Amino acid sequence: MGSNSFGRLFQITTWGESHGKAIGVVIDGCPAGLAISEEDINNELKWRRPGSLPFTSPRKESDRAEILSGVFEGRTTGTPLSIMIQNQDAQPHDYAAVKEVLRPGHANYTYLEKYGIYDYPGVGRASARETACRVAAGAVAKKLLMEEGIELAAYLSACGAVEASAPTSEVDSLRDQVRASPLFCPDEKAAAEMTALLSEVEESGDSLGGMVTLLAEGLPTGLGEPIFDRLEARLGAARSTRPRARCQ
Amino acid sequence: MGSNSFGRLFQITTWGESHGKAIGVVIDGCPAGLAISEEDINNELKWRRPGSLPFTSPRKESDRAEILSGVFEGRTTGTPLSIMIQNQDAQPHDYAAVKEVLRPGHANYTYLEKYGIYDYPGVGRASARETACRVAAGAVAKKLLMEEGIELAAYLSACGAVEASAPTSEVDSLRDQVRASPLFCPDEKAAAEMTALLSEVEESGDSLGGMVTLLAEGLPTGLGEPIFDRLEARLGAARSTRPRARCQ
Amino acid sequence: MGSNSFGRLFQITTWGESHGKAIGVVIDGCPAGLAISEEDINNELKWRRPGSLPFTSPRKESDRAEILSGVFEGRTTGTPLSIMIQNQDAQPHDYAAVKEVLRPGHANYTYLEKYGIYDYPGVGRASARETACRVAAGAVAKKLLMEEGIELAAYLSACGAVEASAPTSEVDSLRDQVRASPLFCPDEKAAAEMTALLSEVEESGDSLGGMVTLLAEGLPTGLGEPIFDRLEARLGAARSTRPRARCQ
Amino acid sequence: MGSNSFGRLFQITTWGESHGKAIGVVIDGCPAGLAISEEDINNELKWRRPGSLPFTSPRKESDRAEILSGVFEGRTTGTPLSIMIQNQDAQPHDYAAVKEVLRPGHANYTYLEKYGIYDYPGVGRASARETACRVAAGAVAKKLLMEEGIELAAYLSACGAVEASAPTSEVDSLRDQVRASPLFCPDEKAAAEMTALLSEVEESGDSLGGMVTLLAEGLPTGLGEPIFDRLEARLGAARSTRPRARCQ
Repeated sequence: MGSNSFGRLFQITTWGESHGKAIGVVIDGCPAGLAISEEDINNELKWRRPGSLPFTSPRKESDRAEILSGVFEGRTTGTPLSIMIQNQDAQPHDYAAVKEVLRPGHANYTYLEKYGIYDYPGVGRASARETACRVAAGAVAKKLLMEEGIELAAYLSACGAVEASAPTSEVDSLRDQVRASPLFCPDEKAAAEMTALLSEVEESGDSLGGMVTLLAEGLPTGLGEPIFDRLEARLGAARSTRPRARCQ
Repeated sequence: MGSNSFGRLFQITTWGESHGKAIGVVIDGCPAGLAISEEDINNELKWRRPGSLPFTSPRKESDRAEILSGVFEGRTTGTPLSIMIQNQDAQPHDYAAVKEVLRPGHANYTYLEKYGIYDYPGVGRASARETACRVAAGAVAKKLLMEEGIELAAYLSACGAVEASAPTSEVDSLRDQVRASPLFCPDEKAAAEMTALLSEVEESGDSLGGMVTLLAEGLPTGLGEPIFDRLEARLGAARSTRPRARCQ
Repeated sequence: MGSNSFGRLFQITTWGESHGKAIGVVIDGCPAGLAISEEDINNELKWRRPGSLPFTSPRKESDRAEILSGVFEGRTTGTPLSIMIQNQDAQPHDYAAVKEVLRPGHANYTYLEKYGIYDYPGVGRASARETACRVAAGAVAKKLLMEEGIELAAYLSACGAVEASAPTSEVDSLRDQVRASPLFCPDEKAAAEMTALLSEVEESGDSLGGMVTLLAEGLPTGLGEPIFDRLEARLGAARSTRPRARCQ
Repeated sequence: MGSNSFGRLFQITTWGESHGKAIGVVIDGCPAGLAISEEDINNELKWRRPGSLPFTSPRKESDRAEILSGVFEGRTTGTPLSIMIQNQDAQPHDYAAVKEVLRPGHANYTYLEKYGIYDYPGVGRASARETACRVAAGAVAKKLLMEEGIELAAYLSACGAVEASAPTSEVDSLRDQVRASPLFCPDEKAAAEMTALLSEVEESGDSLGGMVTLLAEGLPTGLGEPIFDRLEARLGAARSTRPRARCQ
C-alpha cells in the first residue's frame, strides 16, 4: 500500500492532480448504515477552502463534493464510497512559465528523477489541494466516530516560534473557539502574534512550520498498536517534514 | 484488502453501483511513462458493452471511460489513474417492483443479512456492470504487458455442456477470430451449438455456466507464487461460482 | 502479501523447508483470551503426520508443535503466536542423487529460472511438509471458530474418477466417520475403490487428483466478499492445480 | 498489517516475549542469491546486546541468532528467512512481585484494558528485547543495501538536553567512531556530558529521551513516497514517543 492509501479496515485512496479535471477519494470498508450526505462533507471542506482565509492560496474553488457511489437513500451500503471534487479554477496555462524550472522547495526535481516525468501545473499531485480529499474522507470518518461517542477538536498550537495554548480542554467549546479564528488558533494573543509573523514572512516570500494539537474525547483505552505504530506515531508520520512554500 | 481491490504492486480499486451516477476504478502503482489514452480504454470496453451482443443485457450504455487523473500529456506520471464511466441508462425506477422482493439467484438476501441494507436497483454493486471497471483497468494493464512483449487472447471454451477448441495457438490470429464471433468463440461449430443452447435456455428463463481459456505469449518463467497463490489459482479464484440469472 | 501469508485480520505466515532445521508459522491477529495448548495443535497435526497412513510419505516425523510466543498461562495474549515444528527425519544427503536433476512434476525448473537457486533436498519449500504449518495455524483458527459455535468436518469426496458421498450431513458424526477411515473418506464402498485405484497408480509411479468437501455448521450469513473473493473462490484458490508426484 | 510487521516488499514480522522461550523474526520478500550467515547477523546483534554497555539492562544474553530457513548453502533462496534468538536469561519468577502492580511508565494498564490479559514478566512484548529481532532483520536488509552501494551510519545525536554533532559526514569513518563510543556518540565532549547526565538520572530512577541521526550514502533519488509516507515520516514514526523507564 503506497501513500495514496491510508488505513486498514476503513481504507481511503486519494487521486487527482492540482490542475487536472477533478480530485477524489475512494473509501473502502466504511460500515453500512451510516447516515451521510454531501452536505456533511461540504461542511467540513469549507474549513479548508482556498481563497477565503488569510495566508492561504488565492485560488478560487467552491470545493463541492459529489458522492458517486456507496450511499443509497442517505445511508452507506457497505460498498466503496467514491467522492469527487471538480477542479474549477484549474489554470494549467498559468504554469507555462515554470515548465522548464525546477522550483526549490517543491518536489519537481525528485519527481523528475524518480518518475522521469512530472505534471508541472501546480506541481501535479504534490499540492495542498490533495488534502481536500483527505478532509472529505475525514468527514465520513468523523461521523462514524461521533456515532461511537467520540468528539474531536484540533487547533494551531504553534506557528514559527509562537506557541499557543488552548483556553479549554472541553472539546465542544474548544471547537467553537477554533472556528471563530481565521488561523484556527483559539488563543487570541498568540493568534495576533502569528498573524504579524506570517505577514512579515509572506512579504519576504518565505514560509513557516507549525504545529497542530488534537483533542479527542471518549476514546477507548488502547487505540493504536503496541510498541511500533502507536497512535501518536501514526499521527506524527502524517506531518509534512518541513515548511514549504505556499502551493495550492 | 477487500474484494473491491485487486493486485499488489499494480493495484486496482473499483467502485460504483449499477444504477448510481457513475462507476469507476482507481489504479495505484502503474509505472510512469506509459502512453495511454481514453481511446485505448474505450477500445477494450466496446467488447463488453451491453446492448450490442446477443444474450447480454438489453441496457444501452455507451460506456465511455474518462481519465480524471494520473496521465499528463498522454503518459502516466506514477500517480493514481482515476477512470470513470458515467451511467447513462440507469433507471432506478424500473426496479420499484422488486424493492420488496428478494430475488433468487441474486445476492439480495445475503446483502440484507450482512449489511442490513441493500441497493435494490440492478442489485447495486452485485451487477455485471461492475466488470466494466475491471475491463478499463485491464486495458491499462494490457498496454503495460504489451510493452514487455506479452500478448494475450481469450475465448469462450465451454458453455453448458458444449465445449469449444481453439483453431490456432497463435495469439494474434486467435484474437482476430475471437473478435469475429458474437460469442467470442472461435470454434464455429461449437459457437452455433452454443447459440442454439442459449436461445433455448433464455426462453425458459434460465442461465448456463461457461468456461474461458486464456492464451498468453511471451511470459517469463515463474509468474505467480510458489505453493499457494499460483497464477492458475489466482485466475481460478476470479470465477463466479455458479451460473447466475442475467443481470446488468 | 505473498503466498507465504494468508488472511487479513487473523494472518498466518509460514516458513521452513522440507529438509531444514525446522518449519513453522507465525499467527498475527489472533484475539487475546483464547485457551490454546500445544496439545490442541498436536491433536490436529497427528491427522496429517507422514509415515502412519497408506499412500503418504514414508518419512517418519513426530510432528510435535512448540508454541514459542503469544500464549501466557494457557491463553493467547493478543501478540503473535510463533509455532515451530522441528524436522527430525530430514535427510538432505538422501537427495544428493537428484542435485543435478530437474525432476518433472516438481517445481525445480521454475524455481531455478525464477530465483536462480533452489533448495533441492525434498524440493525445499515446495513440499507437502509446508502444509503442517497450515494445519497448526488451522488448529488455532478452529478453536476460535468453535468458540463462535462453528463446527467443521471435511472428507475426501473424489479420488481420480471415484466419487464419494457423505452418509450424513450432521457435522459431529461425519467427523467421527472421517477419522475412522484411513483415506478420510466416510463412504466405505468408495473408499475401497479408491484404495484399489491408488495401489494401482502407486505401482505405476503415477499420482491422482482428488477433491475435498467441507461442511460447516453455524456460519453467519454473508461470510466472504461480494462479487470477487467469495468464500468459495478463496477456498478454490487454495487447491493444488494438478496431481503431483508424491513428495514429503 | 499490524505493528508486528514492517515493510511492503521486504516484509518482516517479529514475535516473542521478553521472558518467553525465544524471540524471532520472519523475513518474507528477501531476494534470492544474497550471501548471508548467522555471523553477519550476530555481528550486528552484539551492538545492542544487554549486559555489556553502561545504562542498559543488566540482563545477560548472548543473543545468538539462528537461521532456521530461507538460506541454502550460504545464500538466500527467495523463501522466508526465519531467525530465532533463544532467551537464556529469562527469569519470569523475578517478576512475581509485580504481578499485581500496574507499573507507571509501562504499558501494563493499556494491555490489560485492551486485551484483558497481559504477560507481566518483563512486560511481555512491550520490551526493548523486541528490538533484537528488528536488529537481526536489519542485518539482512543492510547486506542487501550494501550490495546496491548504500552505506549507513547512525549515532546518538541528543540525550536529554545534550546535543552532539558528527565529527565527519563520511560514513565509513563515522561508523568506526560510533562503534568506539559506549554511548554510540562520536562527539567525545557531548558523550562525556551525556554520561554524567545519565548517571544522575539513573540514581534518581528516572530516564531521558534521546535522538538518533542516520547518515546514508549512495541513495537513489526519490526513495519514500510522495506527499505522505515520506522516508522521513516513516523513520519518524518508528520512534518511541516518550522516555520510558529502563526495561529489558
